[in-house]
Order: sequence, then C-alpha cells, then structure tokens
Amino acid sequence: MLEVNQNYKHEFQFTQEEVNRFAEVTGDKNPVHTDADYASKTMFKRPIMHGMLSASLFSKVFGTLFPGDGTIYLKQTLNFLKPMYVDTKYEATFMVKEVMKDKHRAIVETVIIHVESGNICTSGEATILNSERI
Amino acid sequence: MLEVNQNYKHEFQFTQEEVNRFAEVTGDKNPVHTDADYASKTMFKRPIMHGMLSASLFSKVFGTLFPGDGTIYLKQTLNFLKPMYVDTKYEATFMVKEVMKDKHRAIVETVIIHVESGNICTSGEATILNSERI
Repeated sequence: MLEVNQNYKHEFQFTQEEVNRFAEVTGDKNPVHTDADYASKTMFKRPIMHGMLSASLFSKVFGTLFPGDGTIYLKQTLNFLKPMYVDTKYEATFMVKEVMKDKHRAIVETVIIHVESGNICTSGEATILNSERI
Repeated sequence: MLEVNQNYKHEFQFTQEEVNRFAEVTGDKNPVHTDADYASKTMFKRPIMHGMLSASLFSKVFGTLFPGDGTIYLKQTLNFLKPMYVDTKYEATFMVKEVMKDKHRAIVETVIIHVESGNICTSGEATILNSERI
C-alpha cells in the first residue's frame, strides 16, 4: 500500500533507434528528435528525446512497478525543463505526496533526473487510482 | 503567427498493433493496453490506449503542424477523463488561450474528443515556445 513520503526510483535510457520508433508510432516526426543535421542547427546541437517518451516512463512505473497492477492514470502535469538526449542515463523518481485511502487515490511527485549532473529535466505531479493498492 | 482564440483540429486513430509497438518502445507493458483477456476482466472490458500515446498527438501537432517547425514544448497538463480504444476516431483540438509575443510563448488548450459521441476523453493545457511563429 502506498504511504505518504514513500519513494521509488527507476533508471532508464533510450537509444536513437528507439526514439526513431517512438516518432514512427506516434507520428511525431519533428526532425529535432530524429535528424542529427537538423538538430545540429538548433540550440540543442543534437537530437533530443520526445518529452512524451520520457513522460511514458511515469506511466510505465505506475502501471507495472509502483504501485503496479490495476493502476489507473487520472492526471499528470509535465514541466519540460531541460532537453534529454539518447544514450544517457536518467532516473525517474517518485515521491508520494498525498494518499486518499477512501478514494483509493494518490498524488505523486514525478521527476526525471540526469544521473551524471543531478539536474532535473522533467518535473510534474501525477494523480493515480488503484482500488487494491492505495 | 498564433493568435488568441485560433483553433486547430487533427483527427487520428490507432490500431492494436500500433498500441503494442508503443508498449514495446516505451516499456509500458501494462497488460490493460495489450492483453484482451486481461482487459476483459477490468472495468474497461477491452484494451485501452496508453494515455501518453494520445498525449503524443499534442506533441506531434505542436512540433509539425500548429504552429510547426521550431516549436519547443515547455509544459503540458493532462486529465485522463475517459478511456480511449483502438480503431476509434478521435480528434485532437487546440485553442490558443494566451499569446506572449515578447517571450514567443503561447498557452494552448488541448482536448481529445471521441468523434462519434463528442465526449471529451483527455483535456489539458500546453505552454509552447516558438521564436519564429509566436
């Protein structure tokens, strides 16, 4: 059962090939994500990951790991603070802020950290529902 | 250039095979998205799309269509109000709420509508930056 102040961490990284597949399946073919020549002329200098690919890690963790099976995603806020790059270690971190046991809901702070620098790349807050685990 | 009250609409639908590919590439293998047997025992009765797959439509439209090239995604809020299913027509709709020309930023209301019923499935608000088009 989730408790206030409980933490969870999940490390991840993506390859350029995975980012290309994400672009294909979602239709988000903005070349800043997939075209190194195009990206080299932007402020980012090299291709950046889709923000929604990083946000999908929150969904993955809630639905399969913490709290896992049966989780229903109700809300998510996302602040894309810094660009994220391929072949780079990131950590999705979760901190339970509020538990509403009667409604089986929790509010969870969600942050993605660049492991090497400790910089926050994405921040936000999720509201989830799980009738067995909250 | 974006203007307050300007609208944009973009119709889309996904197949189960595309949802499966999204699950593979993001690692979000919650069986409610991919396993018809599992989903049949939930309140949803059949597999539902990942919320972040629908949210990726917002990113696709901002980055490639409206306002398009050069858009940087700063923020997005997401309220997942109703489940979304494969092989079903949805429309992502956009309404410009605020334009900050000096900062080249805009706040845009983002909504996903089930075309047949007109029901809102996902709502939220985006903040985007585009130094050429805002």
